[in-house]
Amino acid sequence: MGMNENVSKPLDRLSSELAGDMAAVNALIRERMASEHAPRIPEVTAHLVEAGGKRLRPMLVLAAARLCGYAEGQSHVLLAAAVEFIHTATLLHDDVVDESQQRRGRPTANLLWDNKSSVLVGDYLFARSFQLMADTGSMQVMRILANASATIAEGEVLQLTAAQDVATTEDIYIQIVRGKTAALFSAATEAGAVVAGAEAVVQRALFDYGDALGIAFQIVDDLLDYGGATSTIGKNVGDDFRERKLTLPVIKAIAAADADERAFWERTIGKGQQDDSDLQTALEILKRRGAMEAARADAVAWAERAKTALRQAPESELRTILSNLADFVVSRLS
Amino acid sequence: MGMNENVSKPLDRLSSELAGDMAAVNALIRERMASEHAPRIPEVTAHLVEAGGKRLRPMLVLAAARLCGYAEGQSHVLLAAAVEFIHTATLLHDDVVDESQQRRGRPTANLLWDNKSSVLVGDYLFARSFQLMADTGSMQVMRILANASATIAEGEVLQLTAAQDVATTEDIYIQIVRGKTAALFSAATEAGAVVAGAEAVVQRALFDYGDALGIAFQIVDDLLDYGGATSTIGKNVGDDFRERKLTLPVIKAIAAADADERAFWERTIGKGQQDDSDLQTALEILKRRGAMEAARADAVAWAERAKTALRQAPESELRTILSNLADFVVSRLS
Repeated sequence: MGMNENVSKPLDRLSSELAGDMAAVNALIRERMASEHAPRIPEVTAHLVEAGGKRLRPMLVLAAARLCGYAEGQSHVLLAAAVEFIHTATLLHDDVVDESQQRRGRPTANLLWDNKSSVLVGDYLFARSFQLMADTGSMQVMRILANASATIAEGEVLQLTAAQDVATTEDIYIQIVRGKTAALFSAATEAGAVVAGAEAVVQRALFDYGDALGIAFQIVDDLLDYGGATSTIGKNVGDDFRERKLTLPVIKAIAAADADERAFWERTIGKGQQDDSDLQTALEILKRRGAMEAARADAVAWAERAKTALRQAPESELRTILSNLADFVVSRLS
Repeated sequence: MGMNENVSKPLDRLSSELAGDMAAVNALIRERMASEHAPRIPEVTAHLVEAGGKRLRPMLVLAAARLCGYAEGQSHVLLAAAVEFIHTATLLHDDVVDESQQRRGRPTANLLWDNKSSVLVGDYLFARSFQLMADTGSMQVMRILANASATIAEGEVLQLTAAQDVATTEDIYIQIVRGKTAALFSAATEAGAVVAGAEAVVQRALFDYGDALGIAFQIVDDLLDYGGATSTIGKNVGDDFRERKLTLPVIKAIAAADADERAFWERTIGKGQQDDSDLQTALEILKRRGAMEAARADAVAWAERAKTALRQAPESELRTILSNLADFVVSRLS
């Protein structure tokens, strides 16, 4: 059937389908991250941009535009670069906020240079992204990306204040996830449809696809931090637990907790009093309460929602790849 | 003649001329700094926005628009709020970068909350400002403010790397000052002319006015940090010296330095080895080399340039007030 292969490698297939446009996007990124006066800017940016990220967000822009029949002009390339700049800016600021030391296996910019450079170079890239958008000439694109940027920052602030609060609900979690991940996914796919001149119902469908894909993606990430659906302790398992982040499995386990379990979560996440055996206990509770499986079911449901939304878009091979991408995101758990 | 009074109080006259529009701007700022989900955002923003700043930048937008005949609609109000949000965002990020503890006589947000909140709320306000601009419907306004935002961040990064470098030239200083101050002044006045539908030559004149006014303003600020033209030690004198900032008087003194003086600047600014008597010595050298007077002459020349540019704009009482504002900026030195 070839189906398995399609499902397992949709990112590679996306890369190869979009290779020509992505080369143009990468060239534009290198051109626009330059600064005539301040060499520190391209140094910091290159460290992050050339660290081998998957370029998923610009590919989503290009795929959405192509899917909707975009054939000529450069707006989709400008927009893809703008989205990658926003993503890079948020990574720089996130690493300052989280006091991170590593990203993609390399020391973070805030560690190699300093927090100051990360804050200011992030601001520069954010401004650069709006210059790129202005070059598309589309006010609607501007509005979509400005709204997404506000949602991103709002979600991050919400995470800041919700962190370590065991009263955090699933609704708040979804709002945070929209900010952290889904807002830029949905802006990428919606704006791609907009520059292609798609009709409103298709723009909306591509927004819904990106939103649901992003939420599925983040739930899976949060599950993997507890070892995936099987809850086995692997590499880097438990970072979120140690950082006292209220992610979906923990929120579900707290909702179902008995008095002892509630005391455990309040002590370890709420107060941050943890010892070496607590991660193992957390994993046992998550399993006992079915919290991992329940969160996994939510991720699957969001992936299905993404695929359903996509059916409003014109049928094509790219549409099949994007649909497979939604399955692939969840397949990381098996 | 009434002239002296006009010159001494142009800010008050501007406030009273623009009182109606400024009330609308302030209401819009309060409305748009809200966040449905994250109460931390309006808390941090209110701390800064309501601290009693002069609102000079939004007044420049309104004055430029009115000067160019803007009569109806709300674009000038949207734009003024957008410019104030960009200004507030840069203050939040500056205080993180400079590790400041006080602004406008109150503890800074990074001290009252934390660096994280300042970074993320700054990002939120920046995104909000682009939403406001999108509401004006003017792509040219978008482009002007996106360019200004890039220049601001670039100037800040340049300042970061130029700080403590005694080889910093007057050209680099002017680039830094454009980023720190003049870029948002010139964007405010140019974009104000644009929403009013002014012709290109008048847009350009108002850009030049804002640019020259901003540079004069910052040179005066830097002179006041060394006690103004008279070099007497007053309140807060010497902050820039202690922080090893290469400002115009010092750059001029270094260019004219003999061997002993060069060694003094390299030790105190370049290496940061300072003792209690060094500020007094710095002031004496600045005076001896005529550096304070030369920098003051530059500020006066920039103020004159601002007034000359303004002559391209239609004559009106507001134009007289803006012209007097340029004189007022320099008069802070006497």
